[in-house]
Amino acid sequence: MNYRIVSHTVGRILQIEAVLMLLPLAVSIIYVEQDGAASIWAFLISIGISLALGLFLTYVLGKNNKLLFAREGFAIVALAWLAMSAVGALPFVISGYIPSFVDAFFETVSGFTTTGASILTDVEALSHGMLFWRSFTHWVGGMGVLVFIMAILPQDTGRNIHIMRAEMPGPIVGKLVPRLKDTARILYIIYIAITAIEVVFLLFGGMDIFESLVHSFGTAGTGGFGIKGDSLGSYNAYLQWVITIFMLIFGVNFNLYYLILIKQFKTAVKSTELWVYGAIVLISGAAITINILGMYDSVAEAVRHAFFQVATVITTTGYSSVDFNLWPGFSKAILVVLMFVGGCAGSTAGGIKVSRFIIALKTVFRDIKKMLHPRSVAGVKLEGKKVDDSTINSVSTYFAFYFIILLVIFLLISLEPFSFEANFTATVACFNNIGPGLAEVGPMGSFAAYSAPAKVLLSFAMLLGRLEIFPLLLIFTPSMWKKK
Amino acid sequence: MNYRIVSHTVGRILQIEAVLMLLPLAVSIIYVEQDGAASIWAFLISIGISLALGLFLTYVLGKNNKLLFAREGFAIVALAWLAMSAVGALPFVISGYIPSFVDAFFETVSGFTTTGASILTDVEALSHGMLFWRSFTHWVGGMGVLVFIMAILPQDTGRNIHIMRAEMPGPIVGKLVPRLKDTARILYIIYIAITAIEVVFLLFGGMDIFESLVHSFGTAGTGGFGIKGDSLGSYNAYLQWVITIFMLIFGVNFNLYYLILIKQFKTAVKSTELWVYGAIVLISGAAITINILGMYDSVAEAVRHAFFQVATVITTTGYSSVDFNLWPGFSKAILVVLMFVGGCAGSTAGGIKVSRFIIALKTVFRDIKKMLHPRSVAGVKLEGKKVDDSTINSVSTYFAFYFIILLVIFLLISLEPFSFEANFTATVACFNNIGPGLAEVGPMGSFAAYSAPAKVLLSFAMLLGRLEIFPLLLIFTPSMWKKK
Repeated sequence: MNYRIVSHTVGRILQIEAVLMLLPLAVSIIYVEQDGAASIWAFLISIGISLALGLFLTYVLGKNNKLLFAREGFAIVALAWLAMSAVGALPFVISGYIPSFVDAFFETVSGFTTTGASILTDVEALSHGMLFWRSFTHWVGGMGVLVFIMAILPQDTGRNIHIMRAEMPGPIVGKLVPRLKDTARILYIIYIAITAIEVVFLLFGGMDIFESLVHSFGTAGTGGFGIKGDSLGSYNAYLQWVITIFMLIFGVNFNLYYLILIKQFKTAVKSTELWVYGAIVLISGAAITINILGMYDSVAEAVRHAFFQVATVITTTGYSSVDFNLWPGFSKAILVVLMFVGGCAGSTAGGIKVSRFIIALKTVFRDIKKMLHPRSVAGVKLEGKKVDDSTINSVSTYFAFYFIILLVIFLLISLEPFSFEANFTATVACFNNIGPGLAEVGPMGSFAAYSAPAKVLLSFAMLLGRLEIFPLLLIFTPSMWKKK
Repeated sequence: MNYRIVSHTVGRILQIEAVLMLLPLAVSIIYVEQDGAASIWAFLISIGISLALGLFLTYVLGKNNKLLFAREGFAIVALAWLAMSAVGALPFVISGYIPSFVDAFFETVSGFTTTGASILTDVEALSHGMLFWRSFTHWVGGMGVLVFIMAILPQDTGRNIHIMRAEMPGPIVGKLVPRLKDTARILYIIYIAITAIEVVFLLFGGMDIFESLVHSFGTAGTGGFGIKGDSLGSYNAYLQWVITIFMLIFGVNFNLYYLILIKQFKTAVKSTELWVYGAIVLISGAAITINILGMYDSVAEAVRHAFFQVATVITTTGYSSVDFNLWPGFSKAILVVLMFVGGCAGSTAGGIKVSRFIIALKTVFRDIKKMLHPRSVAGVKLEGKKVDDSTINSVSTYFAFYFIILLVIFLLISLEPFSFEANFTATVACFNNIGPGLAEVGPMGSFAAYSAPAKVLLSFAMLLGRLEIFPLLLIFTPSMWKKK
């Protein structure tokens, strides 16, 4: 393990975080008359700590000796996410809005991992600066912080692909263009552009600039932190539809937007994952609409709430337009199943990812074919390309390991005195980066009542889900830390 | 597809079933004064139908042309299990004890697949003959009906390994001795011997011969049908311990008993799967004991109930000594996790199987090693032997597919108006061949309230679980039925 490059890069992340905190600081200054000065001081102190720690890690402990291999990539990603969550929790603690560090850490991990699970029982009590920071962590975590570094820093050793692989979701991570730096830049430009378009649409529907920004951050990162107790429930139908559509847009593989940009429109539209994703949304939305029809005044309202909730769960965002915990069992079961499915690979969404399900099912069909015709040599294809054996194996192993980890976390969370439904969906919602679950942790509930150890475990589950298990687990492997 | 050999063999199964029904017929005759003659007539008519249908399939439609390949093996196993369940349901319907055919089919599938889920709300109302038949289906299904045929019929084409693979549980199926027929015979002799020993132990504890037999059948097949409303709750501590120990014994790979028989004691004791299985039982039992200590008068009682329930769930038997639905959430969560684990490969137990978890975890560790040291060529070993790549892949694919099927069945079962906990654990308990779940389908509840389509779906889930998914699914593949 090359400690110095790890320290160097993690330090860079904290420096970036200090810079990012200037935005909520500005918001706190703008709203100082309404909110008081506590938030301003909290951000100033946090920026100082983040900067000092970052510079120390980068230049005193670390050195950019460019020796970056797979395991350094994993270590950087895992430690960077832990460090930025710990530092990102400081403003909440210092300002006194979330006095407990464990609670603030949970909230920040939930933010960066774009989960959206909250320990706040009264979100409306927070200052504008804190609400902004909370939602901004979604936006930053959505596309990945290390990808951001790659986009803006001059260096490009060509080895950064290890970092990108560890941070980008999905079974296959490819470069859009030969240089990784340019790939990262293109992704961020698309990300910023779509976010900006959403802001405009929301402004048009009557949200003010602050509301438009925080909700766009939450949508873009597929996070789900809102600023009201009833999430999106009190906004008008137009705004709910805008959010629904943008949640779905951010659940699509960003490579497709790049293909559209370079006018390969046909290739983009032919994507199998896109079609399967669309079909799941349509079928689930239709099924729920029929199931909840009797609960609403009009078909239009039922359709809106059905598709809003389908979009929020499959993209693992976690906003809500109604308390879906009150829906009939079948609709709730559809949402629970969608919690596992997740969005497309290469999007900001969590979950297992549609493409993993496609590959797994195609592998099963190939195996069935082999059972019936032992001498057949059928392969698995996705998006017109043959999926290589190592990817197929890693997808299957991912399912097996995902399942085992889910069982273990659920077992430990069951030490908490809540219902089976709450403990189970709390585990699923955190591990898949959704946010709300059902029963006590439903959209109108919160994670406040869980004990501190449970909150730490669930924070860990969120990080495992966002980084797709391996980077975070590897840091517990002793052989990872051996010097060569 | 060679239809004639399929018909031939399925016909044989029905003939065997007719012979097997002579036993409950005899029981019905013995208890005629107490129970009346309805059961006698029901078995006589059922035997007639089974025999006639069997002879027709074997000799009119079928022919033993010895052309048996993998797909014929799968077709035989899937259709044989469906046919014997349909015919096995007849005595219940004809006697009027279970008037609905769907209910009787559910109960019989539950019997043969050794699930033990019941639609009966008052099991004590059944005649002795019916109770005997119900438990006897567990015993027959436990080791496998086709394995039984192999053991007793003279033919041995050497191709029967395809049938054995499809019917025997676990990721790896090997022959104990060069001839498959002898392997099947040895397995059945061990099975009969341990069952007989259990009968003796139960007689010694005060059960009469009828009770001893039915409970031994239920234990040996890891089935779980009891003859009282509170399962094993009203029997004394000695009897509950005997059942606990024998459930655990039948959850062990039978190959180990063969190794002991041929005095390879050391090899048997060194089995990794045995040690992991033992460790899971001990740790779970201890954890539950601590968790429920306050609910019982003495530590001894808590230990007994903890280990009884751990044994019944991990071996997927489904007996109960208390209503564990009333236990605290953590204990229930342990039981739910154990429902997935299941017993050892090559035992009569259901579930995913301990060895699949071992292989999956070892695969993950190998993959981690590969991530850190890309040029390493580490393999996966089990019981001192290298596991070949195709087995590793099939284990991982099994998890992926298992998970997807579980989600789909749960989704459909959620159309039923029961709690999340009931619908989820009903799915898990049927798919893993346990029997009782939690809440409405807990040990003191029943599946009676589910609708007919749900019962058919759950029957299908039980068969999928018992035959480990593929044989049953393959019969829905059109290419399976093409003539060569």
